[in-house]
Order: sequence, then C-alpha cells, then structure tokens
Amino acid sequence: MSGSEDRPHSNYDLVIMSQQTTPQARSTLVGIGVGPGNPEFVTLAALRTLDAADLIFGPTSSAGQPGRAETIIRSLRPELVVTPILFEMSQGSLGIEQRRQSTLGAAEEVVAALKPGFTAAFLTLGDPNIFSTFNLLAEMVTTLAPNVSIASIPGIMAFQAVVATTGMTLLNESEHLSLLTGLEVTDRLDQELEDPSCAIVIYKGGRNLGAITRRIEAHGRSRGAVIGIGAGLPGGTVSELTELRETETAPYLSTIIIPPLRHG
Amino acid sequence: MSGSEDRPHSNYDLVIMSQQTTPQARSTLVGIGVGPGNPEFVTLAALRTLDAADLIFGPTSSAGQPGRAETIIRSLRPELVVTPILFEMSQGSLGIEQRRQSTLGAAEEVVAALKPGFTAAFLTLGDPNIFSTFNLLAEMVTTLAPNVSIASIPGIMAFQAVVATTGMTLLNESEHLSLLTGLEVTDRLDQELEDPSCAIVIYKGGRNLGAITRRIEAHGRSRGAVIGIGAGLPGGTVSELTELRETETAPYLSTIIIPPLRHG
Repeated sequence: MSGSEDRPHSNYDLVIMSQQTTPQARSTLVGIGVGPGNPEFVTLAALRTLDAADLIFGPTSSAGQPGRAETIIRSLRPELVVTPILFEMSQGSLGIEQRRQSTLGAAEEVVAALKPGFTAAFLTLGDPNIFSTFNLLAEMVTTLAPNVSIASIPGIMAFQAVVATTGMTLLNESEHLSLLTGLEVTDRLDQELEDPSCAIVIYKGGRNLGAITRRIEAHGRSRGAVIGIGAGLPGGTVSELTELRETETAPYLSTIIIPPLRHG
Repeated sequence: MSGSEDRPHSNYDLVIMSQQTTPQARSTLVGIGVGPGNPEFVTLAALRTLDAADLIFGPTSSAGQPGRAETIIRSLRPELVVTPILFEMSQGSLGIEQRRQSTLGAAEEVVAALKPGFTAAFLTLGDPNIFSTFNLLAEMVTTLAPNVSIASIPGIMAFQAVVATTGMTLLNESEHLSLLTGLEVTDRLDQELEDPSCAIVIYKGGRNLGAITRRIEAHGRSRGAVIGIGAGLPGGTVSELTELRETETAPYLSTIIIPPLRHG
C-alpha cells in the first residue's frame, strides 16, 4: 500500500509515471470507467489515460458494432483507435461458463497485443471495479502474463446519474445504502426492504422486474422508487417505478432505486 | 420524470439548456460533485457547468481558508472566482443543531446572491447526493425561495478511488455492497460483517476507528480490509487496516473498505 506527501495521488499517476520513467518496463492494463452513458460524465483521468495509451480495447456484444463504452469515448475523441473485443453477454447461471470462456478469449487477445512497456486501456461502462467484467479479465491476464501490471480509473456509476436526474436525496448520514444485483431475487432484498433507513440500488434486475416490483410494493417501499433504463444513453429514461407496475421485464441495463422511508 | 429519444441525457443538459433558451427564467442551484481529492477525477460536466455558472460557492470549515473542494477546482481553473461559505463541521449528535444552523445561514447567503436567471454552482467533495451537505442546503434554499431550481452533477466517491488504488475487486455479480457511516457503531455493522458476500464501505468512521477495527477482527473480516485517509488529497494514504490495529482514532475523512470473504 502507499502513502505520499504530495503526488502521486492515485494509481493513475503511477501509470503515467511508469510510462515516462521506465519505457522498457512491465506492460500495464488499465481499466477505464467511462461512466454510465453521458460523455459529459467522463473524468479528466480517463481522457488523459486514453490519450496516452498505446492500445485501447472496447468490449462489444455483437461483432461489427461498437460497444456502448466505445461509443461514449468516440463522441469525445473520434480520432482514437479502439480495438473491439467480443464478449458473451448471455445472462443467468447458464451463461456463466460462456461468459468465462469469452473473457478468457479476450484476455488472450489482450496479452497477445501487449508489447513490453505498452499501456493498454480497457473501456468499461460505470466503474471498472463494481459489477464489471474488468476484474475477471484482469485476473485472467495476470494468470497468462504475470508481468503485466493492473490499474484502474474509477467512473461515475449509473445509479449516481439516475439519482442526480430525479433530484432525490439518496442518503443522509443516519441512513445507509445497499447495492445489489437483481439477476436473482433473494431474501437479501426482503431484509433490506424491511429496514426503513436503507436506500436500495438494484442493478441488472430487468429480467426480474415484475418480481422485484411486487416485493417493493409488499413492503410499502414504492413511494419515490424510480427505474432508470439505459440511464444516460440515447433513448434512456427515468420513470417512477409505479408507472411500470404491469411490466414483467425491462432491458438488462436497468437501475432500480428505492430511497429510505422518511416521515414528514 | 423524463424520457427522451436523444438529448438531453441528464439534468446537466437541462441546466445548460435553460440558461441558453430562457435567460429571464428561474434561477438554479447546481450541486457539483468534484470527486474525492485528485483533480483528475473531476468530470467534464463539472468543469463545463463551473465555466458557465454565474456564481460558484465553496464550503469551508475555517474562515479565510479555502475548502478542499475549492482547492481541487482551483488547481484546474485558477481563474474562477469561488465564494467561500462557512460550514460548521462539528461531529456527533451534539453537532447536529449547529450544522443545521450553519446550513441555514449558507442557504440564506445563496438565496441573497441568486439574481433571477442566475445559475449558482455549489462545490461538494465526492457525490452531492450521498452523505453530503448539498441536499440539506438545497432543501433550505427551496424553502426560502421556492422558485429556485435544483440540479446536481454526480462525482467520483472516495471509496471508488481507494478501491482503484488497491487493485481489489470490490464486487462480483454474486456479491453486494453496503455503504454506511461510522459516526455511530451499530448492530448494522455486525450484521453486514456476518454476511461473507457483503462488501462494506464505512465513511466518516475515523473517530470510532478502534471500535470498528475490533468488530472487523472479531468477525474474521480483516483480510484485505484497507483504510484510506484523506484519499486522493495531498498527504493522503491507503493502508491495510491491520497496520492501524493499535490506533483508536483517525481523521474524519477516512474510508474503510472490507472486501467480501472469498475462498481460493
């Protein structure tokens, strides 16, 4: 772990410094969080790292089509060359082995392209360390090539953008937040709904929207609850959850937010 | 709530649009998340909103000294004029009324300065809607002046920067995150520590560091746990929590992160 009097502030600086001072040294893979969709939510660190990178990889779920993270960066930096990497996005437990295999294929591609001293950037929607494919990719890359350094640049998460759109106060100091996926609907959700001071954010719950909405209603937590679908992307929407009461499913990239129960 | 085919993507665009098309209209207060400390983690939206704002307020806890959020922005935009607003930062339950009074004073200052059609930006560390003074300020401003519109721009949170520094995988899809404050040490913390698939982030727990560390150890969750103190600020550090085992208190702006228990 590190401490310093002044700079470097973060591993972002370490990445840049290692490029400048030891050009023959280890190569580096940097996960870049590009935010949830709106190019305005990209950070300076993300842009500067991309400008300095030797290679940029962008995940896509369909060959020949740029992925969403690449589209965000393209709108800011049309001149950058992004190499697409195909990722299997099949959902559910049946998809786990397929996703693992396609991530391994992506790791092999990254390792093959990483010449000594190169820095490769890997684009991710949201934050690269939270519910992202980057961590598994990085683990596989270091298994295949232990000399590759791993770094990451945090990104704005979809729920933050949705909260900003609605104007809600997500959390006071006396409250807490639970962030979970809705890929499976478990008892954990009921426990959180029982706790009035718990704000709940559910990612990737589109497939189970109906079941989730009914549990929220059963616990009397519908008031103020919203759903962002493709938040920040063109065509993205933010709606009150009650407006979708009769809807059983929504797209994969949906974010459900349930504010704490407040009186008054 | 809103949905659209293309733009606007977020309330950021709405703010800019309202300035362009209806200069005589309502005035607006925008909470700007400037991230945890490293100026590189500022977003394009934050910078562009600040460049376009008529007024910029920056909270400070000591008169005559710029606050931390102001220092971040000053390093990127030395030419911007930031008006300091004094905030009472006394901690604990005794400080609640003092903090409320000083926030009311700040709200009165903001309202007095906001001419019709003006956009005022209010700088906040991290994200303006999560454990921030912005929401209470905004509520008081709209009570005093109901015609003021409120908007916000999300910011990178301290825990994201700390996680990126350590290279840990914070969350897989089968895990969940709990974000709470350590201003009081409650049973909630024990419940989360009992759940091996729960990643835990504790903000503002510096005053209770010793008590928190002992609970983490008692539940066998010390492995991989880290503490960021003033993360991203000059002099900021990230350490393994076990290194601070004998330490009873740490500064207010500390972030404790406990990864999920993983086997293998």
